[in-house]
Amino acid sequence: MNNGWFVTVEGGEGAGKSTLTERLQQELESLGYDVMLTREPGGIDIAEQIRSVILDPVNTAMDRRTEALLYAAARRQHLVEKVLPALKQGQIVLCDRFIDSSLAYQGHARGLGMEAVYEINRFATEGSMPQLTLYMDVEPQIGLDRVYANQQREINRLDLEKLAFHEKVREGYLMLAHKFSERIVTIDANREPEAIYQDCLKTLLDRVGQRNL
Amino acid sequence: MNNGWFVTVEGGEGAGKSTLTERLQQELESLGYDVMLTREPGGIDIAEQIRSVILDPVNTAMDRRTEALLYAAARRQHLVEKVLPALKQGQIVLCDRFIDSSLAYQGHARGLGMEAVYEINRFATEGSMPQLTLYMDVEPQIGLDRVYANQQREINRLDLEKLAFHEKVREGYLMLAHKFSERIVTIDANREPEAIYQDCLKTLLDRVGQRNL
Repeated sequence: MNNGWFVTVEGGEGAGKSTLTERLQQELESLGYDVMLTREPGGIDIAEQIRSVILDPVNTAMDRRTEALLYAAARRQHLVEKVLPALKQGQIVLCDRFIDSSLAYQGHARGLGMEAVYEINRFATEGSMPQLTLYMDVEPQIGLDRVYANQQREINRLDLEKLAFHEKVREGYLMLAHKFSERIVTIDANREPEAIYQDCLKTLLDRVGQRNL
Repeated sequence: MNNGWFVTVEGGEGAGKSTLTERLQQELESLGYDVMLTREPGGIDIAEQIRSVILDPVNTAMDRRTEALLYAAARRQHLVEKVLPALKQGQIVLCDRFIDSSLAYQGHARGLGMEAVYEINRFATEGSMPQLTLYMDVEPQIGLDRVYANQQREINRLDLEKLAFHEKVREGYLMLAHKFSERIVTIDANREPEAIYQDCLKTLLDRVGQRNL
């Protein structure tokens, strides 16, 4: 679909994705790679508007399927306006969360079914899948403890949901990692940030190197 | 799914759906039926917010697939919050446009494919389909002439699209009417309002009567 390299980073709450992706971007750039770090809605007007409908606390009555369709819509617009053009220019696109988040959260943990959620996301992405997905696997309790301890970011609605929900999210991710073992690399994210970062960097460079970017 | 009766009215621009559905509602109510007339987003907060994203004239760069997903999302919320509860109470729900609009407009006329658009709408509706659909079949030029002549409603973006587009929409509807001939009844809407109305009323009462509402 392009000459770039599409990498997504996935994981539950408190897996450390933000810090990790920023370090990866810096390191890759220092190695001479052209990197775009993004996450949905990523400053794309239409996607931002959709996201604000999803996150509006007034909308407590939002149906799970409505929510899943809105995530797919925001994903589509972000992909078309931001990700695909960057890949076309040969950039490494590092995307914090993508289709696997919908499969694990809406599909598995919220019970809509991974197959059904995959169908609407396939409509949204038209087969534009990441070449590599780094799945940050963290014990839910460890992840949530990190979130609460981190004063630099507010506790959001997802953080507050029950631990059982986060267990289900993790279960969903592990099922995906098993099913798509070529694409998804599971990283033990219960460790210290430095160890996680080194693992991810090595995995990424191994794969990117194979393509001789 | 319910004890009510779910009827949708479909058709291209200027087919006369608004006037028709209002008359049908009045007549059915005078016959003692409990009727709810609605159309998406139908005053449902979340659906209204989604619709305003779709119709915001600033959003000229909206991708066709994003748009189709947003229509499906608004449909879901309107269905869950308004249509299904009314059907559960035994009402006749008269809905101005529903799934067939997405199939004819996005699926066929905009070229996304009716099968693909049906998939995301099946996710949205979970099989809640109308028992009867009145398709107002009008020649596109006749329909557009009516729209322009009607000072009571503003010309919108869809009206201004090329005639060829409206020909495609009609073609899509006719394909659907052929495929779902049990559900969809085609009404010749090129005629005077009174003749169209009488046809629709008779069709509706024939079907509703069969269920002994």
